[in-house]
Amino acid sequence: MTIHMEVDMSINPLNAIMNPKTIAMVGASNNFTTMGTIQLLNLLHSGFPGEVLPVHTQEKEVLGRKAYREIAELPYVPDLAVLVVPTRLVAGMLEDFGRLGTRHAVIISAGFKETGSGGDVLEKDLVDIADRYSIRFLGPNCLGIINTHLPLNITVGPVRDLNGCLGIVSQSGTYVGQVVNYLHVNGIVPSKAISVGNEANMDITDCLEYLGEDEATKAIGLYIEGIRDASRFLDAARKITPHKPIVAQYVGGTEAGARSVSSHTGAMAGPDHVYDGLFEQAGIIRVDTIEDVYKMGWALATQPPLKGPNIAVLTNSGGPGSGIASTCNRYGLSVPEFSEKVQEDIGAYLPGHASAKNPVDLTFHIDMSALADKIPQILFDADGIDGIIIHGIMGTGFLDMLYPTLKDHIPLSRDEILQMFDVSLDRLTHMPAIHGKPLFISSFMNEKDNFIKAFRKDRIPVFDCPETTAKAMGALYRHLLIRLARHDEPGPTGKAPQEASTILNNVGSGVVDEYNAKRLLSLYGIPVTREELAHGLEDCLDAADRIGFPVAMKICSVHVAHKTEQGMVCLDIEDKNQLECAYRSLREKDSDSNILISEMLAGEREFMAGISTYPGFPPCVMFGVGGIFTEAFHDISIRLSPIGRCDAQSMLDSISASRLIEAYRNMPPVDRDCLEDILISLGRLSLHFPQIKEIDLNPIITVQGRPKVADALIILEDL
Amino acid sequence: MTIHMEVDMSINPLNAIMNPKTIAMVGASNNFTTMGTIQLLNLLHSGFPGEVLPVHTQEKEVLGRKAYREIAELPYVPDLAVLVVPTRLVAGMLEDFGRLGTRHAVIISAGFKETGSGGDVLEKDLVDIADRYSIRFLGPNCLGIINTHLPLNITVGPVRDLNGCLGIVSQSGTYVGQVVNYLHVNGIVPSKAISVGNEANMDITDCLEYLGEDEATKAIGLYIEGIRDASRFLDAARKITPHKPIVAQYVGGTEAGARSVSSHTGAMAGPDHVYDGLFEQAGIIRVDTIEDVYKMGWALATQPPLKGPNIAVLTNSGGPGSGIASTCNRYGLSVPEFSEKVQEDIGAYLPGHASAKNPVDLTFHIDMSALADKIPQILFDADGIDGIIIHGIMGTGFLDMLYPTLKDHIPLSRDEILQMFDVSLDRLTHMPAIHGKPLFISSFMNEKDNFIKAFRKDRIPVFDCPETTAKAMGALYRHLLIRLARHDEPGPTGKAPQEASTILNNVGSGVVDEYNAKRLLSLYGIPVTREELAHGLEDCLDAADRIGFPVAMKICSVHVAHKTEQGMVCLDIEDKNQLECAYRSLREKDSDSNILISEMLAGEREFMAGISTYPGFPPCVMFGVGGIFTEAFHDISIRLSPIGRCDAQSMLDSISASRLIEAYRNMPPVDRDCLEDILISLGRLSLHFPQIKEIDLNPIITVQGRPKVADALIILEDL
Repeated sequence: MTIHMEVDMSINPLNAIMNPKTIAMVGASNNFTTMGTIQLLNLLHSGFPGEVLPVHTQEKEVLGRKAYREIAELPYVPDLAVLVVPTRLVAGMLEDFGRLGTRHAVIISAGFKETGSGGDVLEKDLVDIADRYSIRFLGPNCLGIINTHLPLNITVGPVRDLNGCLGIVSQSGTYVGQVVNYLHVNGIVPSKAISVGNEANMDITDCLEYLGEDEATKAIGLYIEGIRDASRFLDAARKITPHKPIVAQYVGGTEAGARSVSSHTGAMAGPDHVYDGLFEQAGIIRVDTIEDVYKMGWALATQPPLKGPNIAVLTNSGGPGSGIASTCNRYGLSVPEFSEKVQEDIGAYLPGHASAKNPVDLTFHIDMSALADKIPQILFDADGIDGIIIHGIMGTGFLDMLYPTLKDHIPLSRDEILQMFDVSLDRLTHMPAIHGKPLFISSFMNEKDNFIKAFRKDRIPVFDCPETTAKAMGALYRHLLIRLARHDEPGPTGKAPQEASTILNNVGSGVVDEYNAKRLLSLYGIPVTREELAHGLEDCLDAADRIGFPVAMKICSVHVAHKTEQGMVCLDIEDKNQLECAYRSLREKDSDSNILISEMLAGEREFMAGISTYPGFPPCVMFGVGGIFTEAFHDISIRLSPIGRCDAQSMLDSISASRLIEAYRNMPPVDRDCLEDILISLGRLSLHFPQIKEIDLNPIITVQGRPKVADALIILEDL
Repeated sequence: MTIHMEVDMSINPLNAIMNPKTIAMVGASNNFTTMGTIQLLNLLHSGFPGEVLPVHTQEKEVLGRKAYREIAELPYVPDLAVLVVPTRLVAGMLEDFGRLGTRHAVIISAGFKETGSGGDVLEKDLVDIADRYSIRFLGPNCLGIINTHLPLNITVGPVRDLNGCLGIVSQSGTYVGQVVNYLHVNGIVPSKAISVGNEANMDITDCLEYLGEDEATKAIGLYIEGIRDASRFLDAARKITPHKPIVAQYVGGTEAGARSVSSHTGAMAGPDHVYDGLFEQAGIIRVDTIEDVYKMGWALATQPPLKGPNIAVLTNSGGPGSGIASTCNRYGLSVPEFSEKVQEDIGAYLPGHASAKNPVDLTFHIDMSALADKIPQILFDADGIDGIIIHGIMGTGFLDMLYPTLKDHIPLSRDEILQMFDVSLDRLTHMPAIHGKPLFISSFMNEKDNFIKAFRKDRIPVFDCPETTAKAMGALYRHLLIRLARHDEPGPTGKAPQEASTILNNVGSGVVDEYNAKRLLSLYGIPVTREELAHGLEDCLDAADRIGFPVAMKICSVHVAHKTEQGMVCLDIEDKNQLECAYRSLREKDSDSNILISEMLAGEREFMAGISTYPGFPPCVMFGVGGIFTEAFHDISIRLSPIGRCDAQSMLDSISASRLIEAYRNMPPVDRDCLEDILISLGRLSLHFPQIKEIDLNPIITVQGRPKVADALIILEDL
């Protein structure tokens, strides 16, 4: 349904949509309980520097502005049309704007594809009209846009903070329009926020491309219910993530999540682990909550990138110090003991029984100068420290808790007390930029505290839970690893070998038998067991002689998908007698099919590789532990075809049992290149033949470290 | 160091410490920048109904109260002594109080065990003095106590909310005293909160026992840096969790965490997975952040227990609905489609294109009556719904965002508008108690919103992130499973077989050779491979004849711990020729040791079991996947000895690859009873012989589902 035109980034239509000079708003009135009116209200009060033209059939004035009865009556062609009108009116009005010459629109109205089949047709109409008039639009069923740099706000929430740096794209309007107070309270300021709705004309990938180029946007947060064209999304994202971090939440990967998103925006959800693979491949940091989209996004948007894993933890309390240190370790960060020099320098500010090692625990004190100024200066200066976390700085928050009880006992006013312990945070809040090291603050005080206010003003993130602070540093560390990861372009997919086409055309649909499956794999350079097809006992004996005992014998039939479970596989056949025995046993179960005689591999370790397919996704390459453990552990990594060398390497490293690939106990290391080649070839094969629904190579047995495919199943789409 | 006396619960000394009638406070002055003064200030203003007696050497009055120069001068014997004085004065003062007759104390002063060896001695003094005078005390190095029911507060934070229901015990004082504002803002009210400090006399387990019995405490939250006596903790916790939920954070399980806690309270940290096992066995819900100790604890403390997995999700927005639904699934909860009747009833309140299936998405509307009253009533009434989550109820929070821009355009005052949309939450906030179903609220508004205030007043938890709300429901579900889990007492440990003692006494220390290890296991009914010890080739051949080919041959020596890696194991020996060959090969490596001839098991699946030991813990029983996968997957469950049948069952079910134990592919199910017996026996064995440092049975091979130990390593403590 998505229309995608090959466009130069510099003319991404979102540049126009997010920066209009003139806006026509249809659907706002003087009834403040309707959404359109609230949106116009926010637009008028957002500080938008351009012109706003309300259109209303009855009212002469809307919210104090002259209203026009019809679109055709507008005094000039507005840059952007915003429609918040009943579903049935949308198409006609979009056409009116098209006729007038407006080329960009935001369609808030709902009632389209998300409602089912009737809405589908109505939505198709919008797309057709837009195509006819070269209109690019967001929506329908979206909640508007925010640009804190113009500024511009056409959501239901009034935006108070300007010139933010976190770009937000959401498939739920709530996460653009209803969170403005939440974001304000948490000190988070979006650069641009875009609600994409049903994505009939412009989708989440268009927005990603736009924010990737947008200079005001330093990090991007995505709320995702389902991606329609995963390949395009991947291409866009992997261009951005090496220099600009992306965090994303995906909610469609569970049964209830998938059902919910389908009735919400009609999104097509996919299994969770496929999105894991997509995010991994794209260098996107996955988070599990919308809170983390904002909070981790804000951490990434505001702070200098982390350059190494070593974190200094400075607190006035051992509990938060331990929680932060422990959580840093969980996220792969180190909390190293400081050098003796640093310990000595810090020691000057510590009470006798406090530790200067890291974490530093100053213990409780009302005077904040050591915690908020002197020790941080030492830590920012210190070599071998890459990031700093501080817990416990508090000012008026603590005083205001205490002052009501204190004031009866002392002759000082609140401000006089404040004066006594005044510390300027100016040095601290500028240290991250000066030293190129990130700083995060943990505090149980809220935004009323003067110090918290000061941190927020200078965009040093403050979190109300010590472990969340460490998690934010973990997000920066994750992005460091993404930046450092090697990337390569997948090689050209090329053309399928003629013989491969012949094999698959002969099969047509359904199951490809093991013999043909392995012939096909061989054509792509994938190592398979030596084997021959035979029918009679004599043929089998001859074949076994050529291959060499011990051999395996299997019924080779398209009708038997789970041969082992049905007793149609005989392994470890050592000699002619055993072969005869095995032959009779197999023939009792199936007298007609051919028998496959294969070399028997004395294997050490078993892996699996394969292809699986999902709507909206290109064929996906899988890799994991093989044999009976595949199902038991579900330890599988997945990437989207085509995959390059670096993707394949990352797949090997991504399974939890990846140490099985290295030299392990008394086994030699597995030939990584060969395993990677198998995965890269599977990717090419799957793109050559879109009729392939599933490939399952399991087990791939390693002999002296060399992997060889011992069993192969290929299933084609039913015709 | 911990002193534990066998006491009846009804006289747990914490009853006296938490409910004193008279308190002597030493260390508070009129200098409001010292901790002691702030603590006295809070005590005086906490509403404490008893008498407070300050002691001060110079001041005549402290904070307006008559101060006594010496403890001996106090006019009567105070119930509780609170000491916030320099380290060197503590012991003498404790003795003074002992002499006076005071039997309970809270020692805030730091500088004891947490500082290292010198502090150790000082702390031992306190313990001795307390023993001499039968004093029970909290601390040293703690931050005080809160009882919101007396009320009583001797922390640095002023407590505003009374009569709470979440009990808090913390090994960090911050999480008792410095979080009061945080808790207030989040609507969380502790019943009792206890900072245990160095636990010289009373420890976290004493507090757990106290809160387990405390009627005002409906759930317990623990912050843990290290447990000194894990067996006692386990005994106490497993008595509580079937009826009162416990959530716990443990931070000592990482390298940096362990280092941090050791310098904080001198706690002895243990590996993370051992604490996982302890919490699992105790029925404790583990959380990763202090935020979750409070928030999940509050959810569990305030709401009726969940009776089933079926959750209704009601929102005014698809995004939060999808996030909640998806997260519910992640926590094992179901979000089932409603019955047709319920959908019909709900449908009456829905706009045309909204879904009534579950999650229900009302879409955005200013009128809250459907969201906050009418539809919830239907859901609480509905059969087959066990819990309800609502997102999107908002009142003044939203209005106050909008009103500043609205007021120029409409003639209504803020209160008139509020009147228009007034909905009483009274029905909704009482539904959980009436229907016995939990309710959680998700809202991006904060505590200023009138509706949020109303929820908080009636102790309906409100979270500012949709997914956190689902996580809270997940915590209730976890507690449902804990309540439903079968429990049994481990059988009597009994006496060790005489022969077992003989074997281990002969070995003395270090490695027990495989032959003796298996003889020992046999004495505990653990099935091992049939095998014989031999030396010469002839003996080996005879032994193999008796056992029956194929056999395995291994060098049997206490000097060879990793036989396989050193080529000292020959497997699958089929006949005499092969045996001779193997014999020669083994003798090349080791000409002296005996050779173990064992039956060769044609195995299907391999498991491992064992014993590992940690300071402060009884021997721990381990179970996991065996063979080469043990190290690769680290898929291991662990429990503290002794273990009962239900513990053993839970160990089998707790590994990720637990499906390997069931009928799997074409293999029969593993004999669970037999695997469980092995684990139970290991527990007994380990308790009989405290000199055992480690047992490693790997692999345990199953043949036709019957497990048998194929290799065994036992290591004793060095003498």
